Amino acid sequence: MQITKPTLLLDKSICLRNIDKMSSRAREVGVGFRPHCKTHQSHEIANWFRDFGVSKITVSSFDMAAYFAEDGWLDILVAFPFNPLEIKRLNLLSSKCRISILLDQVETIKSFHGLEKEVGYYIDIDTGYGRTGIKSDKFDQVEKIIQTARLNRKLVFSGFYCHAGNSYKAKNRVGQNEIHLKAITDLQNLKMQFSSYEPKVLYGDTPNCSIQKDFKGVDEITPGNFVFYDLMQASIGSCRESDVAVAMVCPVVGKYPDKKEVVIHGGAVHFSKESMKIRGQLTYGKLLNFSKQGWTPMQDGMYINSITQEHGCIKMRNEQFMGTRVGDLLAFHPVHSCLSANLMKQYTSLEGKVIEKLQSR
Amino acid sequence: MQITKPTLLLDKSICLRNIDKMSSRAREVGVGFRPHCKTHQSHEIANWFRDFGVSKITVSSFDMAAYFAEDGWLDILVAFPFNPLEIKRLNLLSSKCRISILLDQVETIKSFHGLEKEVGYYIDIDTGYGRTGIKSDKFDQVEKIIQTARLNRKLVFSGFYCHAGNSYKAKNRVGQNEIHLKAITDLQNLKMQFSSYEPKVLYGDTPNCSIQKDFKGVDEITPGNFVFYDLMQASIGSCRESDVAVAMVCPVVGKYPDKKEVVIHGGAVHFSKESMKIRGQLTYGKLLNFSKQGWTPMQDGMYINSITQEHGCIKMRNEQFMGTRVGDLLAFHPVHSCLSANLMKQYTSLEGKVIEKLQSR
Repeated sequence: MQITKPTLLLDKSICLRNIDKMSSRAREVGVGFRPHCKTHQSHEIANWFRDFGVSKITVSSFDMAAYFAEDGWLDILVAFPFNPLEIKRLNLLSSKCRISILLDQVETIKSFHGLEKEVGYYIDIDTGYGRTGIKSDKFDQVEKIIQTARLNRKLVFSGFYCHAGNSYKAKNRVGQNEIHLKAITDLQNLKMQFSSYEPKVLYGDTPNCSIQKDFKGVDEITPGNFVFYDLMQASIGSCRESDVAVAMVCPVVGKYPDKKEVVIHGGAVHFSKESMKIRGQLTYGKLLNFSKQGWTPMQDGMYINSITQEHGCIKMRNEQFMGTRVGDLLAFHPVHSCLSANLMKQYTSLEGKVIEKLQSR
Repeated sequence: MQITKPTLLLDKSICLRNIDKMSSRAREVGVGFRPHCKTHQSHEIANWFRDFGVSKITVSSFDMAAYFAEDGWLDILVAFPFNPLEIKRLNLLSSKCRISILLDQVETIKSFHGLEKEVGYYIDIDTGYGRTGIKSDKFDQVEKIIQTARLNRKLVFSGFYCHAGNSYKAKNRVGQNEIHLKAITDLQNLKMQFSSYEPKVLYGDTPNCSIQKDFKGVDEITPGNFVFYDLMQASIGSCRESDVAVAMVCPVVGKYPDKKEVVIHGGAVHFSKESMKIRGQLTYGKLLNFSKQGWTPMQDGMYINSITQEHGCIKMRNEQFMGTRVGDLLAFHPVHSCLSANLMKQYTSLEGKVIEKLQSR
């Protein structure tokens, strides 16, 4: 394998280990596993999940749903508030496979007039994240959706969906536990309140699914990012850095001795502009020990400190700086693997095999 | 034209006006015009420049150089520090057209051993931006590059290149003027010092090329972003908001009356995570008045206040909130059009015509 330009390497063994761990977890806590595919967006990687007994998936757009339906997935949840303008695509897709959608607006329901096949819907529930969803204590609003949707016999109430994304912002483990406990308690209450409809509960972002143990009342978990993990997830304790399955490999194109800075070909069109603060400094990626065999985390961190469209700048310690040459390849874990993967055309395995993915929309 | 999902609209008349203005400016101040294509990354849009007499272009990667060479461009500057691992591609491309590159490292020069065709190089000069380049007062380092490169007869010294990107960070017009004045003065000094080589001077980011008048000593300007402009450029005075030629059109998928917030399908995979602060608030895009005829800026700003992979959230004033329905299309100017355009597969003109562009790498 000859890398000459920014390349997103995938360590398949780490990736399979992450899938194995999450699918074992789901089995252990007794919930179904409906992994989210928005992170990898790849037929081949989705197929790796089949060996772990996965038969249903989650996606976040109709573009992704169409892409995975093409490859034979028969049970796909589009975990995004249904967009009334997509009714034609919903009809097209649901003629081929079982598509479920999210609802949290009564207003949206009238757009289902032209629905041709039966479609299951989950009510999006907000247990504190505050992005979308009906607030978990608003039983009347839930009831109103169910009653309005009942007038359309092709719309089938399947249950509740919750993405407790506030778990990403918790300050510590205690905060994470509180967010999780509130979420599953609220979902249990909803399940009880609406038990006559036998609702399923779908739940689970990567942080909660990686660290929590109590999933009482939950029927299926839907984490996505865990397939690769990233620096952000490592920083909030969802994983260790050694669990991150992707690394962006970038050629060194400049060395600036006066500021001990190295410039790589690797910028916002590869890493994205997702940043995090490490010791008060904005960071766009973390340098790894890298060889032909793969990578290992570096004890003492060096980071991409600034990024523009194609450039990344890394301040280095002296010894590292002295040992780095123009034309070397450096590898970095991304801050947010979903956005980095989305930007790239493909993955390359450590063995040099190209792994295709969905292209930009 | 029926828009059902996030779509990057391009107003061709604004775009042509921007091209016309910049090319007239170049003529008026008496410099050549070598527009940067990293913003649009499109064969068709690059061809619009031909009608304004443009015959040479700037790009920021070999992927882009290859893409534009395919479409018959014969004089392409890859304005990115040369990556020694790309020597094969350089040979391939320079057998088809005239490729120029940037150099600021003596160490890089040895990688040109296998150079097959004559290649012009510009020395990258840092007049204060601090990203790449030789500091403008380090004549000895410039001399060393020229002398080392002379040993390879296929490497031809063409002149100096400077991207004074610090102009983006100037606090006001006075600051911008100072940055520009320092840059062109430094470049004039270099040109004089090395006059025996008859160096050309290539200069010009979008802010400086949009507002400055004195380009003494500059031979060609190389701005890129002006083709579309964006919120960031408007905020630093490079353009008015009515000069921004692109708008991301996004379906409304949710309304949340308690927080007067609207959620759109339109997230970090469409806008990028580039943000700017407006009145202390992070912003990812600005709402426009939008109809089938096109868009106009809104007097009183409403903004995308938060963004995740596919979701964007907009806090609205009451009247606007009341008038917005699920299934409506909203249009937004992006904060950074280069990154938004890079994420999207194509542009759509106001007449509904698809304009192809380079796909992700």
